Amino acid sequence: MHRFEFWYEFASTYSYPAAARIEELANTHGVTVSWQPFLLGPIFKQLGWSTSPFNLQHAKGRYMWHDVARSCQLIGLPPLKKPVPFPQNSLLAARVALTLPDESSRAQFSRSVYSAEFAEASNIEDPNVIAGILDRLGIPSADLLKRASGSETKDLLRAQVTRAEELGIFGAPTFVTFDEELFWGNDRLDDALKWETNICQ
Amino acid sequence: MHRFEFWYEFASTYSYPAAARIEELANTHGVTVSWQPFLLGPIFKQLGWSTSPFNLQHAKGRYMWHDVARSCQLIGLPPLKKPVPFPQNSLLAARVALTLPDESSRAQFSRSVYSAEFAEASNIEDPNVIAGILDRLGIPSADLLKRASGSETKDLLRAQVTRAEELGIFGAPTFVTFDEELFWGNDRLDDALKWETNICQ
Repeated sequence: MHRFEFWYEFASTYSYPAAARIEELANTHGVTVSWQPFLLGPIFKQLGWSTSPFNLQHAKGRYMWHDVARSCQLIGLPPLKKPVPFPQNSLLAARVALTLPDESSRAQFSRSVYSAEFAEASNIEDPNVIAGILDRLGIPSADLLKRASGSETKDLLRAQVTRAEELGIFGAPTFVTFDEELFWGNDRLDDALKWETNICQ
Repeated sequence: MHRFEFWYEFASTYSYPAAARIEELANTHGVTVSWQPFLLGPIFKQLGWSTSPFNLQHAKGRYMWHDVARSCQLIGLPPLKKPVPFPQNSLLAARVALTLPDESSRAQFSRSVYSAEFAEASNIEDPNVIAGILDRLGIPSADLLKRASGSETKDLLRAQVTRAEELGIFGAPTFVTFDEELFWGNDRLDDALKWETNICQ
């Protein structure tokens, strides 16, 4: 099976509906998803941005909240809530996601983090929130949280950010096909899957 | 017939494929398009930007040129060319578009300007380029170019920018439905038309 990579950032609003719908949509195309958590912070920092572009640009930010809510409603997600603060600090969630042993648990955990963040407005920086999510998924949280803060995971996450930069990623979600074509944005998931399918046939 | 507004900026890359495909797509939905040229420059200036965000953000700019070329190819447009300078100064083209007497000639003129700019890499700031386009469309260019530089047209264009800001527009293309829902981006044209159709039924 060829790789189809889903690059997502836990603080990213548009990554939330993408995470919610990607598995079902990929299945209909016969494509298996590789979940790739990363951090946008270091990439935005190089642009001189200290926060989300949606905070920096008022009109764009206002549109985005309206549009994400509309996009979530369209695919049957609960009413969107804006977490405080926004953007959330996504470091812990990204480290935990990378510590999980397989795609399936990473996907389940990631979807649950997005739900906590954007459907319940929970603070995903809080280790108790993350531990609660892991426990509900039947994953022993104490051991995992310990490993998530270890140097091995930190190195893995740094390598993810480096690889994202090498691929030319500048926003999330970004879909990377087998032949390293990039498609940026939740609204390009269909195009990306079509590209992947055409190549792999 | 309800209004479906297409807000476009002549310097905007993604407005080019949107202008090329909007009429046919709108027709299939039974929707009539209202062509609304405006300038993004004054809006970007308020954000402290002196040029296109695609010039300011290297990775995003590189992706954009690749993605626009890909999007143009998909709908059968000629190979994309990057005009020099980019972005082009779009003031003259916007003024001329606003001076044209009806939607049909505005649509034809606008599509021709985009083709000159992005398929032939012509400089659309050049009055000779604009005059050539008008002449090919059978529109007497001398009189029109004179009126385009008059105070009435300048006021019209300023009013367009003010209205764009009031609508919350921050980029191009933007589609505004009958009930003033905004959809930003060439890749959201289908969603916008679906919205318009659902409301008007």
